[in-house]
Amino acid sequence: MHALVYHGPGQKAWEEVPTPRLLCDSDAIVRVEATTICGSDLHILKGDVPEVTDGRILGHEAVGTVVEIGSSVKSVQVGDRVLVSCITACGACRYCRQGRYGQCLGGGGWILGHLIDGTQAEYVRVPFADTSTYPIPAGVADEDILMMSDILPTGYEVGVLNGRVQPGDVVAIVGAGPIGLSAIMGAQLFSPSHIVAIDLADSRLEAAKQFGADVTVNNGREDARAIIKELTGGLGADVAIEAVGVPATFELAATLIRPGGHVANIGVHGQPATLHLEQLWSRDVTITTGLVDTYSTPTLLRLIGRQLDVGRFVTHHFAMNDFLAAYDTFARAADTGALKVVVSP
Amino acid sequence: MHALVYHGPGQKAWEEVPTPRLLCDSDAIVRVEATTICGSDLHILKGDVPEVTDGRILGHEAVGTVVEIGSSVKSVQVGDRVLVSCITACGACRYCRQGRYGQCLGGGGWILGHLIDGTQAEYVRVPFADTSTYPIPAGVADEDILMMSDILPTGYEVGVLNGRVQPGDVVAIVGAGPIGLSAIMGAQLFSPSHIVAIDLADSRLEAAKQFGADVTVNNGREDARAIIKELTGGLGADVAIEAVGVPATFELAATLIRPGGHVANIGVHGQPATLHLEQLWSRDVTITTGLVDTYSTPTLLRLIGRQLDVGRFVTHHFAMNDFLAAYDTFARAADTGALKVVVSP
Amino acid sequence: MHALVYHGPGQKAWEEVPTPRLLCDSDAIVRVEATTICGSDLHILKGDVPEVTDGRILGHEAVGTVVEIGSSVKSVQVGDRVLVSCITACGACRYCRQGRYGQCLGGGGWILGHLIDGTQAEYVRVPFADTSTYPIPAGVADEDILMMSDILPTGYEVGVLNGRVQPGDVVAIVGAGPIGLSAIMGAQLFSPSHIVAIDLADSRLEAAKQFGADVTVNNGREDARAIIKELTGGLGADVAIEAVGVPATFELAATLIRPGGHVANIGVHGQPATLHLEQLWSRDVTITTGLVDTYSTPTLLRLIGRQLDVGRFVTHHFAMNDFLAAYDTFARAADTGALKVVVSP
Amino acid sequence: MHALVYHGPGQKAWEEVPTPRLLCDSDAIVRVEATTICGSDLHILKGDVPEVTDGRILGHEAVGTVVEIGSSVKSVQVGDRVLVSCITACGACRYCRQGRYGQCLGGGGWILGHLIDGTQAEYVRVPFADTSTYPIPAGVADEDILMMSDILPTGYEVGVLNGRVQPGDVVAIVGAGPIGLSAIMGAQLFSPSHIVAIDLADSRLEAAKQFGADVTVNNGREDARAIIKELTGGLGADVAIEAVGVPATFELAATLIRPGGHVANIGVHGQPATLHLEQLWSRDVTITTGLVDTYSTPTLLRLIGRQLDVGRFVTHHFAMNDFLAAYDTFARAADTGALKVVVSP
Repeated sequence: MHALVYHGPGQKAWEEVPTPRLLCDSDAIVRVEATTICGSDLHILKGDVPEVTDGRILGHEAVGTVVEIGSSVKSVQVGDRVLVSCITACGACRYCRQGRYGQCLGGGGWILGHLIDGTQAEYVRVPFADTSTYPIPAGVADEDILMMSDILPTGYEVGVLNGRVQPGDVVAIVGAGPIGLSAIMGAQLFSPSHIVAIDLADSRLEAAKQFGADVTVNNGREDARAIIKELTGGLGADVAIEAVGVPATFELAATLIRPGGHVANIGVHGQPATLHLEQLWSRDVTITTGLVDTYSTPTLLRLIGRQLDVGRFVTHHFAMNDFLAAYDTFARAADTGALKVVVSP
Repeated sequence: MHALVYHGPGQKAWEEVPTPRLLCDSDAIVRVEATTICGSDLHILKGDVPEVTDGRILGHEAVGTVVEIGSSVKSVQVGDRVLVSCITACGACRYCRQGRYGQCLGGGGWILGHLIDGTQAEYVRVPFADTSTYPIPAGVADEDILMMSDILPTGYEVGVLNGRVQPGDVVAIVGAGPIGLSAIMGAQLFSPSHIVAIDLADSRLEAAKQFGADVTVNNGREDARAIIKELTGGLGADVAIEAVGVPATFELAATLIRPGGHVANIGVHGQPATLHLEQLWSRDVTITTGLVDTYSTPTLLRLIGRQLDVGRFVTHHFAMNDFLAAYDTFARAADTGALKVVVSP
Repeated sequence: MHALVYHGPGQKAWEEVPTPRLLCDSDAIVRVEATTICGSDLHILKGDVPEVTDGRILGHEAVGTVVEIGSSVKSVQVGDRVLVSCITACGACRYCRQGRYGQCLGGGGWILGHLIDGTQAEYVRVPFADTSTYPIPAGVADEDILMMSDILPTGYEVGVLNGRVQPGDVVAIVGAGPIGLSAIMGAQLFSPSHIVAIDLADSRLEAAKQFGADVTVNNGREDARAIIKELTGGLGADVAIEAVGVPATFELAATLIRPGGHVANIGVHGQPATLHLEQLWSRDVTITTGLVDTYSTPTLLRLIGRQLDVGRFVTHHFAMNDFLAAYDTFARAADTGALKVVVSP
Repeated sequence: MHALVYHGPGQKAWEEVPTPRLLCDSDAIVRVEATTICGSDLHILKGDVPEVTDGRILGHEAVGTVVEIGSSVKSVQVGDRVLVSCITACGACRYCRQGRYGQCLGGGGWILGHLIDGTQAEYVRVPFADTSTYPIPAGVADEDILMMSDILPTGYEVGVLNGRVQPGDVVAIVGAGPIGLSAIMGAQLFSPSHIVAIDLADSRLEAAKQFGADVTVNNGREDARAIIKELTGGLGADVAIEAVGVPATFELAATLIRPGGHVANIGVHGQPATLHLEQLWSRDVTITTGLVDTYSTPTLLRLIGRQLDVGRFVTHHFAMNDFLAAYDTFARAADTGALKVVVSP
């Protein structure tokens, strides 16, 4: 088969590789019918994720059809159309028993396109298929569900649920890239009174409006803190969600919340931030971090096509043999306007 | 009457002042029968709390008897023996309705000995008496309840409850001064499997053992992180409670917890700390801060004399006219072995 | 002034009575600008609520303007336009401290139009005004907020929140009268996947559709249990909300839920029901009851005019001197199609 | 091997049967070193559990050593000493993903000694071994852990956790048989202020005292409701746990709680009870039922030998070839004083 293979920092190729086969009796082999590219794939290509080694097939998101299953797989059958979750779960360790699959101690967690070969390929081997794949409801198009692999549960679990968004809340979302947009989409499930999107790029803020933010702030030229104070009688936001991953945005988020508020960090950070405990110690704040677990996937699947219009993330389509062009379009999002691309056979 | 009066940084006196009288119909006047000194009184005397001005009577903890009540006070009567809470609550604002009295927007919060005259006096005016005083169960001695004013609810709410200590947990408590000890006492109400006390002073660690810590670590010469890793199969503590208030202890607490763990900050901080998001972003951590609300006071009062031996904090007794000696003993705790002092008429 | 006065079972009159005046310094006198009639007013008129005695002014819902306040009232001023909550809260007792105002031990709870004179009058005395009235956001019409006095927080707190409705849930609501409709409106704040309304009257089911139910079941001729089983893969509803108040509807609700599901009873019951523990003991069910507390009123006020269209309950308008006609129209809802009536001066 | 085999109502024998072998690659074969008898085994023998058919080996509790594992088993090895949980979990279905193993849809739940052969045998086949067995901490004797198979998690999860026991609570436990005693033991992990045990037998009440109840009520001659009202200032208990399984005890539990309280039903019921909604509708009560899930087993294992003295349930020991005598002693508990018996090879 062909796959998108990593060959060290800056190096990738769409090339011929062996077709995967079952290694464990809990594995499934899935024929990939749609996959996409994630910000963390770009991180890997910059060389920022040293666990990823030369020869690794990238990608951790897919929709496809099961073509082979191991002897212990029970919840999917050959021929089933499935969502492949970005997180693999052994199902038996301390963390999996609590639904914290992202912290799996039994060989799971984020491994696809990271520690084992991934989904940017014609076929992929999915370990622990019973807990790591989800049958797709009939009648749902590939691109209307693909973002359930990673981006939607990430925004929902690590942003919205960790931040404990409640009806009536004022929710500030710092960063309106794909992850911030997924938090905007997810937050609406709890009927906040206001969603305030904050970004430096007007194009992203325009997307934020389309996704449901009712207030947008360009914090290159506007004062996010002042705008939120005015919106909240001087108190601050109930929840601030960080969706960028640099110290400045985290530190901004921490200044936006009211006493008793929540800061939910989603961003992938490469360096420490400053925590202003001299201001925060007495303000009853809660700060959370997290890797997506995908425990919410069954819930989100029930909302597809009704409360959740997942397909709206998709701005571009590519054929697999044009995978390098797909990467180029996604990497130059500021120019191309790409949110998420769909790559199909 | 006489009272302990602040006269600017480093200056205090036990001197004659006017006896307080009712200012609002929700006030009560309480004759103080026992009061104590708090670490924050020492902060004030260092000049670190600029809201406290020359002439202010210090103190926010007391047991006493009601001698006069305003016309709208209903829950206490003249003659009632009461606990005066360190936190005053208007009972009607957004935060008071949620039990977050420490964040009261209606004129309450921490005001005694801070924004209004306090309890280190023969008499004290207590605003919002209905929500800020608690009748004392018959038969309980002053010193067996006085620490319910502040220190015990602080350790319990801001440390134990914010940290969500659960049965079977391994709980690390950084700092074994009076607040850390109150967290040790409070944590035992939830039956953790281990309480690990961490401090630089062996005398404090000895006190921690007396209060219920089963593991003690002198982190001047021992590696707290390694000891906790060993105790937890390499994972880390379920909960780490910071009870000091300097960057290093907060940063230590943040390295001690397992993925999915909680850091509950109690310490009063004067400067920012470094938050290692480059390590923590994917570890599902929850970090909380808080000012005590005293919403747990009714709960804790039900446990006095049974599960809670509150009197054990008391190491020294003084008469009020010896108040300066009480301050001296408390301020030189390392030499005197003082935990909490009781000062009575 | 004039008021609607109860004179024993079946007897009421719009008659002249003394204008109320302040009795306590926490009271406010409110000029009523809009009030309504509740199902419990009809219960009283049937003689089912013996605590209500001859001469009592009925009514516990109002919008109006403050004309006088007692000396300790701080959160509202003379001239403020306010919502009068159906529940009065002392703010200081054990239950009020936890937001369970409906269980107030300090002289509050449901007292208006029950234990003291109520809101179906030109003026009403509101005890504990600080915790029992809410300033109305500018620009909101009386009838767009009046249902916040009782019906909306009742459906939301006792139905939706007690039932712990979550995104993706299938919610069954038994009874599509005004309370059932308020539960339908409130449930949508949490984005369930399906809301199933169940009633015997097609006209009510039509209203349920208008309020947001996507499935309706006439259980006079359809099998609610079978329909829900089919909708849920044979498991049952996540939440069933009882909004009628007779044994049969409670017992139906208890058969509709899946293992692990919730039954939230809102209905006012006059007789016991049968609890089929021989079926339920092993099914991990949670059953709740409750009187409204109105702790959610501030939350709901933030959603008015955005996520909540509260005015849609109003089907009829009357002048106060036509109060008997208003009662007649409301009592004959099946004929008149009345949901809620608004009565104004 | 030999096993205790059910042969229809009233009929059982210790007889020779085939030794079990692996049927699925997720199975383990365990050599039983200690097992016990449960109240539900007696129910089966009365013919009350028709799913149990002639020829079934009874028993769902065991400590033993793994002698063989299927190819997909990862968390236990041959030679490991393990606790066999009474609940078997597929680990992948909707309920297992939420830790509700008792409701497993994938072939688990309570199956041992019920739908498949059980533990009252020299060897037992344990399906889904990864999620259904637990390695035993070194140094713990068989009888100090055996009650972790069923009775302790049952009392803890279905009674204490469902009832949400909190520090300071007054907890009423109706029924002081082995399940009631396990609830008494588990409740103490949350430091209630009082545990009130209620039973008709003084011998059981004496055991309740030994297990930690500080108030005992013989409700054959004392008025439980009056005693609890007196203990709680007229309000009622915070939590009432039903541990018998007949209508009268459930109905008693429902009258014991305060407004806002919890009734947690543990008992196995064979007939419906009366729910006095005409009294309860306005009292904010929560009623729960449940089958044990054993999600708390890892937590409880961490407390063994420290906060939990599990061995104290054991009153009698038998050799396996004396199994009929063990049944006789357990069935005649009123005469023999048996709480739990241990049966070993």
